[in-house]
Amino acid sequence: MTQIYNKVALIGLGLIAGSIGYAVKRGGMAGSVVGYARTPDTRATALELGFVDAVFDTAAEAVVDADLVILCVPVGAMSDVARAIAPNLKPGATVSDVGSVKQAVVEAVAPHLPDGVHFVPTHPMAGTEHSGPHAGFAELFDNRWCLTTPLDNSDPQAVERLEDFWRGLGANVERMEVEHHDLVVAVTSHAPHLIAYTMVGVADDMERVSNTEVVNLSAAGFRDFTRIAASDPTMWRDVFLNNKVATLEILGRFTEELFALQRAIRKGDGQKLFDYFTHTRAVRKSIIEAGQDTDAPDFGRGAPKET
Amino acid sequence: MTQIYNKVALIGLGLIAGSIGYAVKRGGMAGSVVGYARTPDTRATALELGFVDAVFDTAAEAVVDADLVILCVPVGAMSDVARAIAPNLKPGATVSDVGSVKQAVVEAVAPHLPDGVHFVPTHPMAGTEHSGPHAGFAELFDNRWCLTTPLDNSDPQAVERLEDFWRGLGANVERMEVEHHDLVVAVTSHAPHLIAYTMVGVADDMERVSNTEVVNLSAAGFRDFTRIAASDPTMWRDVFLNNKVATLEILGRFTEELFALQRAIRKGDGQKLFDYFTHTRAVRKSIIEAGQDTDAPDFGRGAPKET
Repeated sequence: MTQIYNKVALIGLGLIAGSIGYAVKRGGMAGSVVGYARTPDTRATALELGFVDAVFDTAAEAVVDADLVILCVPVGAMSDVARAIAPNLKPGATVSDVGSVKQAVVEAVAPHLPDGVHFVPTHPMAGTEHSGPHAGFAELFDNRWCLTTPLDNSDPQAVERLEDFWRGLGANVERMEVEHHDLVVAVTSHAPHLIAYTMVGVADDMERVSNTEVVNLSAAGFRDFTRIAASDPTMWRDVFLNNKVATLEILGRFTEELFALQRAIRKGDGQKLFDYFTHTRAVRKSIIEAGQDTDAPDFGRGAPKET
Repeated sequence: MTQIYNKVALIGLGLIAGSIGYAVKRGGMAGSVVGYARTPDTRATALELGFVDAVFDTAAEAVVDADLVILCVPVGAMSDVARAIAPNLKPGATVSDVGSVKQAVVEAVAPHLPDGVHFVPTHPMAGTEHSGPHAGFAELFDNRWCLTTPLDNSDPQAVERLEDFWRGLGANVERMEVEHHDLVVAVTSHAPHLIAYTMVGVADDMERVSNTEVVNLSAAGFRDFTRIAASDPTMWRDVFLNNKVATLEILGRFTEELFALQRAIRKGDGQKLFDYFTHTRAVRKSIIEAGQDTDAPDFGRGAPKET
């Protein structure tokens, strides 16, 4: 693998930044990786884990001389970070981010950046329910998709270089319009997360069903929802606040469809239910054929632990 | 492990029956296991896989001399099967089932059974998205919960014997009232399944988002829903038709809660969202502590396959 940037700076050192750091080192894709995180603890952990070569007490110091700066902070923190680093950005540097929404990030970041710096938003579609620097691992992006949403004035060479970088991290790369991106992720990620959070909240709040019952009997489907609903609260708060329109549109369609199925249940329309459930089975098949999930039963969960 | 029944008959030879057969053999819990399935193909497969020692062309023949008969067919088929086997049941035999709802099964089965036969409904809370005889495996019930819902007139010794049998299959056993059972599973299983089916249906039906986009970008949360929504359509049609009241009650609460969170998004109430998401994270922790799921990121899914 060829080195693509000399110095990469990661602002924010959680699951995604950690995974980028490990994957950069795996592929030898940068001369050095440096980082900044808000808390001294996180900085020390990242350095100890070794996915960065150096850490700095401020974001502004971390970006000095960096050829690529990746903002790996919650969407709500993007604007402040962009303002803080702007004066120290090297001319010709590329600034990118890994935010789960793109329109809001473009609005938060672009106005702060000086001329001569290339801003290329990206969104690697990968993650786990774990968060923090310990959660990162080099394989997170392998065969996953990284979306890039270049702006009208983005420099083509800077965009291609960043896309090469992401391919080097193991990802497939696809370009997308900013607005379309926000709709697509509302379907594949944001609405499913809100729905999972809601279902877990409902179960937890039932008075006639004890929490012990919910926990012990979760294997019948519910526990899959709890994994999603264990994702980082700060990140997800910011996602929903910053992708309002698309998320609310998808949730509106979801509710409409749910009501139709509820009516089928109430009326005893077995044929409608059977047809619907047969249809959705095919989607799963496509995902497995595309290599985007395992076909092992229950995701290949190991044998349950003894209590 | 001690033998608990001399002859066990499995009516229906899919995922659950297969797993029972394998687990019975693993534990040496029966002298012999015989089976019946509707299609000759399934019967031949079950015999070849070896989780039954013999198969029969009719359910009525399969139950002759059996000490335990377990109905492993979709809930909608229970009544016909009970009627078919009734004349051949051995006096003192126990009839059980593994249906996901209990009130409807009691109503479908109990009236057909002769005096002197013990009917003890059960519900092993375990499964995968796969179905058919190939889907079964001996470890399915290990450390999962099996609910028994004895009736008022159930013979205590027959109930205890069946519960010992389920413990021998690896399960934890808990007794529950029939009506309470149907509410608990509506929360932990039925509502989550309908919600997953709905979300997958919505994504598949979006005109402005291509199916390729949905499939490729599914790793961000959506693919977990597709696993649940790949479950057996016949079984799930019957579940919803037969647990209407409880499922519709939970879905009503779910919608109410979802609307409250949608309103928080619309109004930009970040604190409400953050608090909600923090709370649901704790439920996940309880499930892992109870040994009911793995803490490995993404359920310990292996590295993605190359396409």
